Amino acid sequence: MSIKAVVFDAYGTLYDIQSVASVTEQAFPGYGEIITQVWRIKQLEYTWLRSLMRRYEDFSVITRDSLAYTLKALGLKPDRGAFERIMDKYLHLDPYPDAMAALAAMRDRKLAILSNGSPGMLNALVANSGFDRVLDATISIDSRKIFKPAPDAYTLIESTLGVPPVEVLFVSSNPWDACGAKAFGLNVAWIERVTPEAMALACVKSDSVAPLTMFKAIRTQMDELGLEPDYRIRALSELPGLVACHER
Amino acid sequence: MSIKAVVFDAYGTLYDIQSVASVTEQAFPGYGEIITQVWRIKQLEYTWLRSLMRRYEDFSVITRDSLAYTLKALGLKPDRGAFERIMDKYLHLDPYPDAMAALAAMRDRKLAILSNGSPGMLNALVANSGFDRVLDATISIDSRKIFKPAPDAYTLIESTLGVPPVEVLFVSSNPWDACGAKAFGLNVAWIERVTPEAMALACVKSDSVAPLTMFKAIRTQMDELGLEPDYRIRALSELPGLVACHER
Repeated sequence: MSIKAVVFDAYGTLYDIQSVASVTEQAFPGYGEIITQVWRIKQLEYTWLRSLMRRYEDFSVITRDSLAYTLKALGLKPDRGAFERIMDKYLHLDPYPDAMAALAAMRDRKLAILSNGSPGMLNALVANSGFDRVLDATISIDSRKIFKPAPDAYTLIESTLGVPPVEVLFVSSNPWDACGAKAFGLNVAWIERVTPEAMALACVKSDSVAPLTMFKAIRTQMDELGLEPDYRIRALSELPGLVACHER
Repeated sequence: MSIKAVVFDAYGTLYDIQSVASVTEQAFPGYGEIITQVWRIKQLEYTWLRSLMRRYEDFSVITRDSLAYTLKALGLKPDRGAFERIMDKYLHLDPYPDAMAALAAMRDRKLAILSNGSPGMLNALVANSGFDRVLDATISIDSRKIFKPAPDAYTLIESTLGVPPVEVLFVSSNPWDACGAKAFGLNVAWIERVTPEAMALACVKSDSVAPLTMFKAIRTQMDELGLEPDYRIRALSELPGLVACHER
């Protein structure tokens, strides 16, 4: 079976959410990275909790609320300007350096994003990075009012692109998203940007377990959810070759 | 409206999950507390992710899988004996010191636990702590195959005790659980065991942001989910007075 569409998660997969740290560090010197890590954890938690409680709010509201939580939990008091400057960076995240070339090399397939982001956030992000020139669609889960990894979110790929799950390769660096896509029945490539060896080395002595190492340990290892991605890759640049091989 | 039933969350509310640290520290010196914190984060994540993916497994499976993830992420290799000793501690968690007295003082109401725990885990825990002598029911969400904060989980209170939400006081130290119960329509008392002042003080300098402080910041502040508990208390010992006052 050939791959007719390659569909990407946005945050953490095509776009480096850690690039927010440049702005958070400027606003709160010494706290830049820790803010982005706690913020991400709470942002994800809130998507899952609101989905389960059936209290959907779009991703821009959740991103704002989780930033407010983070600053409060760290005892930081932003002025209005600083808060908005941090939020605005979410519309100008840095793409991973190999993202554009990987997309361009697969233009013979349908290419799309399927993201938790709100339509407003995603459209701005895609336009600001110039990816609108190579993507066939930017799909937000907003129309279903439930976040990934709920199966309903992944149904949007077929209903938007007209390509059935078995002919789609879904690409995510988020382990829970890779598992959700696999549970739904998509072909899945998981991008493992931090290797277990690097992580084990970083954690080798307990006194060296820095908060950031810990957050990465929580977020970057494949989850134990009884599901396995079809492919494990280390970078987006591996995708064109993988998609071509899948045919044979 | 009077309170006819007081219903408690178990893990973190009546029972101190941090008491696992005595066993994890013995198994992995220097890692005791960090294991319990990462383990808890992943355990909760897996309940939410499996609920959303509709891949329910009971809490004993999730607790085991999240411990396996945690040790792997930290680069730790347990022998079989150590793994089972840590798991076994979950059936012998220390109750909070004021738990039994608070329960005993409210025996004129119906008293129950509503927990994510599997029936096997909960029955062992309640028997081992002697709380079976004062509780009218120990309710597991297992019969609904979905975890809190899904509304279905909270419906078990009325179907088991015969008391409608408006006459129930639900007690939890877990902010997301307090929010879920509130969204469902229960009266809610949230136990705030770490004050914002103590947290802000602990985080006052970025070099002093230890991993444990950070994990506590993620877990112990009230979440920004657009919901507010009816009562904020600092300890279980405040409950008998609160319940009595609610009548007037």
